[in-house]
Amino acid sequence: MENFEYCVPTDFMFGRGAESQIGAKLAGAGIKRVLVHYGKGSVVRSGLLGRIIASLDAVGIEHAELGGVRPNPEVGLVRQAIETVRNRGIDGIVAVGGGSVIDSAKAVAAGARYEGDVWDFYSHEGRGYVDLPQGALPIACVLTIPAAGSEASAFTVLTDDASGLKSSMGSELLRPRFSFMNPELTMTLPPYQTACGCTDMFAHLLERYFSESPDVPVTDGIITSLMRTIRVEAPRVLESPHDYDARANIMWAAMLAHCGVAGCGRLEDWATHGLEHELSAHDSRIAHGAGLAVMFPAWMRYVYRTNPGRFARYGSEVFGLGTSGDEEADARRAIEATQRFFISLGMPAMLGELGVVEGDIEGFLPTLRVNKGEIFGSFKKISIEDAREIYRAAL
Amino acid sequence: MENFEYCVPTDFMFGRGAESQIGAKLAGAGIKRVLVHYGKGSVVRSGLLGRIIASLDAVGIEHAELGGVRPNPEVGLVRQAIETVRNRGIDGIVAVGGGSVIDSAKAVAAGARYEGDVWDFYSHEGRGYVDLPQGALPIACVLTIPAAGSEASAFTVLTDDASGLKSSMGSELLRPRFSFMNPELTMTLPPYQTACGCTDMFAHLLERYFSESPDVPVTDGIITSLMRTIRVEAPRVLESPHDYDARANIMWAAMLAHCGVAGCGRLEDWATHGLEHELSAHDSRIAHGAGLAVMFPAWMRYVYRTNPGRFARYGSEVFGLGTSGDEEADARRAIEATQRFFISLGMPAMLGELGVVEGDIEGFLPTLRVNKGEIFGSFKKISIEDAREIYRAAL
Repeated sequence: MENFEYCVPTDFMFGRGAESQIGAKLAGAGIKRVLVHYGKGSVVRSGLLGRIIASLDAVGIEHAELGGVRPNPEVGLVRQAIETVRNRGIDGIVAVGGGSVIDSAKAVAAGARYEGDVWDFYSHEGRGYVDLPQGALPIACVLTIPAAGSEASAFTVLTDDASGLKSSMGSELLRPRFSFMNPELTMTLPPYQTACGCTDMFAHLLERYFSESPDVPVTDGIITSLMRTIRVEAPRVLESPHDYDARANIMWAAMLAHCGVAGCGRLEDWATHGLEHELSAHDSRIAHGAGLAVMFPAWMRYVYRTNPGRFARYGSEVFGLGTSGDEEADARRAIEATQRFFISLGMPAMLGELGVVEGDIEGFLPTLRVNKGEIFGSFKKISIEDAREIYRAAL
Repeated sequence: MENFEYCVPTDFMFGRGAESQIGAKLAGAGIKRVLVHYGKGSVVRSGLLGRIIASLDAVGIEHAELGGVRPNPEVGLVRQAIETVRNRGIDGIVAVGGGSVIDSAKAVAAGARYEGDVWDFYSHEGRGYVDLPQGALPIACVLTIPAAGSEASAFTVLTDDASGLKSSMGSELLRPRFSFMNPELTMTLPPYQTACGCTDMFAHLLERYFSESPDVPVTDGIITSLMRTIRVEAPRVLESPHDYDARANIMWAAMLAHCGVAGCGRLEDWATHGLEHELSAHDSRIAHGAGLAVMFPAWMRYVYRTNPGRFARYGSEVFGLGTSGDEEADARRAIEATQRFFISLGMPAMLGELGVVEGDIEGFLPTLRVNKGEIFGSFKKISIEDAREIYRAAL
């Protein structure tokens, strides 16, 4: 088992009405003036934003509001938010939404404590970032989309439209201080967004399960247990969007899939996330989960011969497939089962369904090289040449 | 799923040499003067204490030392430690040892910030404590015995020899700030202590799995996954005490079994821990794990008819038992498998093996009533009369 450090200090309030505690919790932490950050305005129309502001008002916490965070959030709005935070003497960020809003809030929280431009945290050649956060304002999340796990993770992904780069950054300073998780808030999520979220959380577990690490039974068991939960509960939420327990299981599984507990003692891979980020950077209408649904099976087929036994075991433990004695055949069945699972949720299988054509691939490779370097991944080392092959196979 | 709040802010340093980071981590947290608290002196003889003090010295953290914590720690030494903390202006507690040492350190950490007597936190009639901690000094653990999960939990158990009471207390203020977990430090644990630890961590999962709550797939999956890990890895550490990976899996599983993640969204039971505490309060030579190995199967046989399906499923998922269509028969097989597992680790099956005789039982009931009330438990409500029957059945 690899040495590791693990610390998730986030205070999770989970269940019906969880968001009503936000005022009291933030006041208890000494927070006095917050930026309420959100997306398209559905949280305004649903009345959620109003309830949050009422909870803040009730304890005398002042607030500014900034909506408009888009899927695949862009650095421009972050810069605008940082200005507001500085001008208004704001000492906490409240993110109301899904992973995009929380990722944007994390950038604001760190950027507000930084003299340079916030994109410095995301800008790098290979592994070397221009700069790292040295501090961050406290972040509280009111989660409305279970998917990215950003409500607990140290990570944020941002896009810079000017350069066409989509880049991720991690810092323990960015773990949210509070996360309010009310499964009822997710009941009105459209089926496609629900399915994209389920695919994304499942993919976070795949990135951790498939690496060069030998077996780590305690962690592997948690990974496959969470995968089974998603495999069973995702179809339930799609079939019965108002099933509270199904929504609750999915919501909590999404957090556990990406808070780090599913990676303790293991190396991780993250090649496929790298491959996908180029798709949604290329066309911001491509949902991250949909891109992953296409790229994961393609990556699996390219790499599984490196350790077919691992794939066979995954098929057995997660999809209940039997073992035939032929590990390569079992591995291929596990990959087919993975793709069938994504398709059953309504996800695409091929790049063409996302509007990506062969001629686009060469355009992905230069930014992929900037983001991931010449060689990346862990289960199998992937070169830019390999990446081209994987994209082609996914057409 | 039940509403819940979950927050484990502990910073875990896990792996070979983890304890060498203690000076730097404590200095980074602004801690200047610590009490190093430990048990019988094996940590002195092994050189561990010397290494910890060297790490503290290297960053200029002053220290006082207080050893002598016994298994089933007693409040007298805690009072002595609180005196030292106050006289020396100490601002942090370093616990070097297992659950007993950490539980004692938690009492010191809270007692030092309290004007009254520390036993007030443990003293209660039924559910009402005399007082609750309002603050606590930061605690750092260097764990040497994986078992109690106290390195992450909010709980502490203490004994008062004067009254014969053994009582538990929980407060989120008592979660350790840092836990240094080096599996190498556990390689020299004697087999009996190793087995008691494995039984204890397994029992922490049983208390969470068997309650009146309906299924919570995401959490139930984590529970049964951790149980399987312990079922497989516990025999390995007993067979090969120097197997680093087996020790590492057991050590991390023990933490996860009791940090709270295995209970999210579920009610919990804790009747059997209550029944056991009377045994080790009666005779402090009785190891908590050994007492649990006897009391759990006895409790199971008494209560399983309340929900035999839950027991049948446990038998299937944890012990790989088939299902016969007769849930009660399957449940009984699961209980037998549990007891066989404990026996295979070298644990006792009957109270007689622990020196407890029929005449002792009546003496357990008055303190059990003080600690747990007239009715306790969740899977099935247990009365003091029921408790007598369960003790008798375990003779």
